[in-house]
Amino acid sequence: MKSAAVIGTGLIGQGWAIRFVLAGLDVCLFDADPQKAATSLTSISDTLDAMQSAGLCDQPKRAFERLRVATSLAECVEGADYVQESVLERADVKRNVCAQIDAALPSGALVGSSSSGIPASAFTEHLKHRARFFVVHPVNPPHLVPVVEIAPAPWSGAEHIPALRTLLSSLGMEPVLVRKEINGFILNRLQGALLNEAWALYEEGYASADDIDATVKHGLGRRWAFMGPFETIALNAPDGIVDYAQRLGGLYQDIAKSRSDPKPWSEQTAQRLDEDLADGDDRESKIKRRDTMLMALSKALS
Amino acid sequence: MKSAAVIGTGLIGQGWAIRFVLAGLDVCLFDADPQKAATSLTSISDTLDAMQSAGLCDQPKRAFERLRVATSLAECVEGADYVQESVLERADVKRNVCAQIDAALPSGALVGSSSSGIPASAFTEHLKHRARFFVVHPVNPPHLVPVVEIAPAPWSGAEHIPALRTLLSSLGMEPVLVRKEINGFILNRLQGALLNEAWALYEEGYASADDIDATVKHGLGRRWAFMGPFETIALNAPDGIVDYAQRLGGLYQDIAKSRSDPKPWSEQTAQRLDEDLADGDDRESKIKRRDTMLMALSKALS
Repeated sequence: MKSAAVIGTGLIGQGWAIRFVLAGLDVCLFDADPQKAATSLTSISDTLDAMQSAGLCDQPKRAFERLRVATSLAECVEGADYVQESVLERADVKRNVCAQIDAALPSGALVGSSSSGIPASAFTEHLKHRARFFVVHPVNPPHLVPVVEIAPAPWSGAEHIPALRTLLSSLGMEPVLVRKEINGFILNRLQGALLNEAWALYEEGYASADDIDATVKHGLGRRWAFMGPFETIALNAPDGIVDYAQRLGGLYQDIAKSRSDPKPWSEQTAQRLDEDLADGDDRESKIKRRDTMLMALSKALS
Repeated sequence: MKSAAVIGTGLIGQGWAIRFVLAGLDVCLFDADPQKAATSLTSISDTLDAMQSAGLCDQPKRAFERLRVATSLAECVEGADYVQESVLERADVKRNVCAQIDAALPSGALVGSSSSGIPASAFTEHLKHRARFFVVHPVNPPHLVPVVEIAPAPWSGAEHIPALRTLLSSLGMEPVLVRKEINGFILNRLQGALLNEAWALYEEGYASADDIDATVKHGLGRRWAFMGPFETIALNAPDGIVDYAQRLGGLYQDIAKSRSDPKPWSEQTAQRLDEDLADGDDRESKIKRRDTMLMALSKALS
């Protein structure tokens, strides 16, 4: 694959564009709002410079020259070997945009949707080339976090998965396969399970927001930065997971049962969390700090 | 505080001993099995050498000289300003050991139990000095992961918490407070929630064990290595957690509801996981690799 189209130029689309140009692909961007597409170029250029400073990009100018902006979606898609859709996370919006991609799709090109939880079957059923549409879900920010979920619809062509894997690996990503459709796929289901417990512990007064965050960042996250949850517990009992399940399975079953009647996330709790997390820093500087740390981790873990 | 007693010299007790000696405390070790106590010295010495190689310990020999082994529990406890209990995770065992610590406890000394899920009230109620007993739960391996949970029993003296925090911070740890007793405290409840979802996804065939592990280590864990779950989502929607809850609260509620009838962890699934995770490497080399990575992260994140 030599060229990619990026439909939707928000932060996720920008992250994809950066992955593509750094891997040497020519990239065409399209956004329904031309002003947004133009702004995204500046933002991508800044990010490439920051990545150079962090030792993650040798030639930011040369990478940037691989980008261009199309004036129509059809023009953007027509020359592409691969299309990544990153528009709003709403089934009706994705259905409409995917129909337009479908109409302009070159023969053989594959399409990935950045959907973070809506299964592909909710917005690709009626497409002519639906066998070539997949959910290809990255993590925010896509240019700095390697994992990416390939989540096929029932009619997605399994024969295309090896090519998708090859493409994503060539971008420095770590593809995982969601074998059957499920809301939230793997990543957001795992994140959601932990968040639901964190939310309840906070709401019920067991710990402060800061202490819950600290428990993850100074504890669980240290190991999970380079080991998965199963690898982690396999080393936490002398005889592996069977042994661990005998020791702690009962506790975890109790925890699950204690949450068998889940309450929805309340706006009041969300507001209190936003207040508790406010530390005087603005959003922009927090995002910059996060991305600086992610770049340092990319180096440390590679 | 100048001296600490460590009761139980398994991996958790050894980790505590290392934290204490590196912070300049004199440490007395006791184990009901004298052979285990003797072996733990060799193991601690090796770990201090490895930490020196990683730049995390200047003078391993000097640190090691702060250790001694007592021949009785009473002798071990008598000279201590602080006692850390790290015996088997069973309420009856902890009750018995804590009664012995209680009988020998110097006036003013505090006691922490490494209990990873059993609340202090299950094994400290009948003690004379029960106000000075707390759960002080570290993460495995304690010398390389900073977080530590302070979980008081209803009768633990709140007036002792500032001194505990000061001690733990002086060890380079990050104390968090569990405000009310709950099974599993904060850390293992968060870990358990994610593990329960991971277990179900694996058992139901949605993804392989390797892909579930990859989703965390190449995805969620990258961010959680330096940001908590609430900090993370606050940056994942333009207007913070209230905004994020409006976008994704419904999905997470669906995920919670889909697990409202939790199945216990089956031995069969545990066995399959152990088989799937087997990669020819033995446990010792996996632990060594984990600890090498944790040491690298300690440097990168400090």
